[in-house]
Amino acid sequence: MTSHAILNLSFLQTLVEVLATLAFALSGMLEAARKRLDLVGVYAVAGLAAFGGGTLRDILLDRRPFFWVEHATWLWALLALCTVAMLGLRSRHFELTERAVLWPDALGLGLFSASGTQIALNMQMPAIVAVLMGVITAVVGGVLRDIVCNEIPSVFRDHRPYAVCAFIGTWLLVLAQALNAPDWLGLAAAAGTTVMLRGLALWSDYRLPAWNPDPSPRRKPE
Amino acid sequence: MTSHAILNLSFLQTLVEVLATLAFALSGMLEAARKRLDLVGVYAVAGLAAFGGGTLRDILLDRRPFFWVEHATWLWALLALCTVAMLGLRSRHFELTERAVLWPDALGLGLFSASGTQIALNMQMPAIVAVLMGVITAVVGGVLRDIVCNEIPSVFRDHRPYAVCAFIGTWLLVLAQALNAPDWLGLAAAAGTTVMLRGLALWSDYRLPAWNPDPSPRRKPE
Amino acid sequence: MTSHAILNLSFLQTLVEVLATLAFALSGMLEAARKRLDLVGVYAVAGLAAFGGGTLRDILLDRRPFFWVEHATWLWALLALCTVAMLGLRSRHFELTERAVLWPDALGLGLFSASGTQIALNMQMPAIVAVLMGVITAVVGGVLRDIVCNEIPSVFRDHRPYAVCAFIGTWLLVLAQALNAPDWLGLAAAAGTTVMLRGLALWSDYRLPAWNPDPSPRRKPE
Repeated sequence: MTSHAILNLSFLQTLVEVLATLAFALSGMLEAARKRLDLVGVYAVAGLAAFGGGTLRDILLDRRPFFWVEHATWLWALLALCTVAMLGLRSRHFELTERAVLWPDALGLGLFSASGTQIALNMQMPAIVAVLMGVITAVVGGVLRDIVCNEIPSVFRDHRPYAVCAFIGTWLLVLAQALNAPDWLGLAAAAGTTVMLRGLALWSDYRLPAWNPDPSPRRKPE
Repeated sequence: MTSHAILNLSFLQTLVEVLATLAFALSGMLEAARKRLDLVGVYAVAGLAAFGGGTLRDILLDRRPFFWVEHATWLWALLALCTVAMLGLRSRHFELTERAVLWPDALGLGLFSASGTQIALNMQMPAIVAVLMGVITAVVGGVLRDIVCNEIPSVFRDHRPYAVCAFIGTWLLVLAQALNAPDWLGLAAAAGTTVMLRGLALWSDYRLPAWNPDPSPRRKPE
Repeated sequence: MTSHAILNLSFLQTLVEVLATLAFALSGMLEAARKRLDLVGVYAVAGLAAFGGGTLRDILLDRRPFFWVEHATWLWALLALCTVAMLGLRSRHFELTERAVLWPDALGLGLFSASGTQIALNMQMPAIVAVLMGVITAVVGGVLRDIVCNEIPSVFRDHRPYAVCAFIGTWLLVLAQALNAPDWLGLAAAAGTTVMLRGLALWSDYRLPAWNPDPSPRRKPE
């Protein structure tokens, strides 16, 4: 690959992370507003939703600097986005925003999981670990958002394929690497498949099979 | 110590981590089922319960690779275990499984805490830090499981000796090191004591003294 | 600066961290008692509240050893403090303790956030990242305390200026560095401003502007 192509790929990867980040931040803001958090809570939950997944991936892979340290302007961008959204968003916009966010969020799922897997593969991680790192990158922001807001993470209980789409899609990146295909092809195939699967799931309203063997709640300790 | 003995010790340590891991994963599955999580939630909570403690210990000690990166096949084993358990477990099996799991879990408590303490001692950590690392290794998986499931961690509120057993047992490892006893002896004494104390606590239904000075709940902020 | 001054600064910084740590630990104990946690829970929540913020900062900055590893006696001090407090504190002392803790806590807010920012600046972090690290140092202990106790972190929802004071104050440290002022001056100005702002907020009972655009709770997934 020429250095020009590497530059473009790296630029594309950055662009991708930025777009996904905005959709994730917005999902954090909506949740924070629903829980009536204050100003600090809105910024914090939006930031966690946006940067939490990539940050945990980098901690696990012992990788520095974080995206938001290397590109610190994005912290300013997040502050600005939250402030503008707080001034502009009214409760009647919420449902609309939520539906409008579904698609960039699906894009983010594809792009984040693919880039996370790529990073782990480049560090010689085993295939299943690389795939897991991709899923973590895409999913953990939302998990932390929900934990801070005192909810069971929706990705663990809404029975909609989300993490599953990324889990399937990112294997194409592993396959591409095994076949010595160029990086951009693997990234595009993985991200594309994930986004397509997620789109299909949204469109068909598909539910994951439930495992509900236990009708009785846990007994509380006395 | 001969290289043969080192090999055996390291093999034993791996075997120990594997056994404990299975018991912890099962506790995660039961909790996930009680909370009616979906497929992804069951895998995630089982994984957190199984690998969360050791992973946090390694992050704190800045130690890589993680157990589940070095032995990535165990991620497949976890996926397989969860899938089989989901196909086979019915709600009427739950109470039985919970009781059956108590003993391998006690074994896990002893083995994980001892191996965690040993690792920290090998890195020249102070004694109290090494003991704390042992307790974290054994206990944090269950803590993360409960936090994700939106419960106060049961290890912090069920008034049964659990972390306390590991806290006491692992000091034997510190003692063994101070006396220049061989590693395997310290490990065996620490793990054995912890398992015995936990067994005793289960058998006698002992409760920790309660500290309940406050009859009134906290006032919520307006 | 002479080596003597450096010594004093470093001694002052340690002293500061110790004082703040005690106030934070006490806030953890009170919360643990309110939730009726057992012995282990009281120690754990007090420890998280005391050391959680600095530890997360050090994990993010990839910095070792942690404060509580380098000064492991402080783990003993925490154990002792908790034990004494559990023996001495009665429920009628709670409200008094809570009010008495507000001022050392404000001191801790100023000192922790300033020292956290200083550490990040010394590692050549961008200004906004350094300020964020300062806020994380001061605030995350309380966040973890509340998450473990199954509450939405009060710092994210009580509409009182807390993180905001530290956010403003720590910028003075960035300014001092840009002006090549000595470290102690920047630290004093930042910590002093933060404490003053927090004191002003407590005294005037000021509330942050609310963003409550949504009167309806989120629909639960079926």
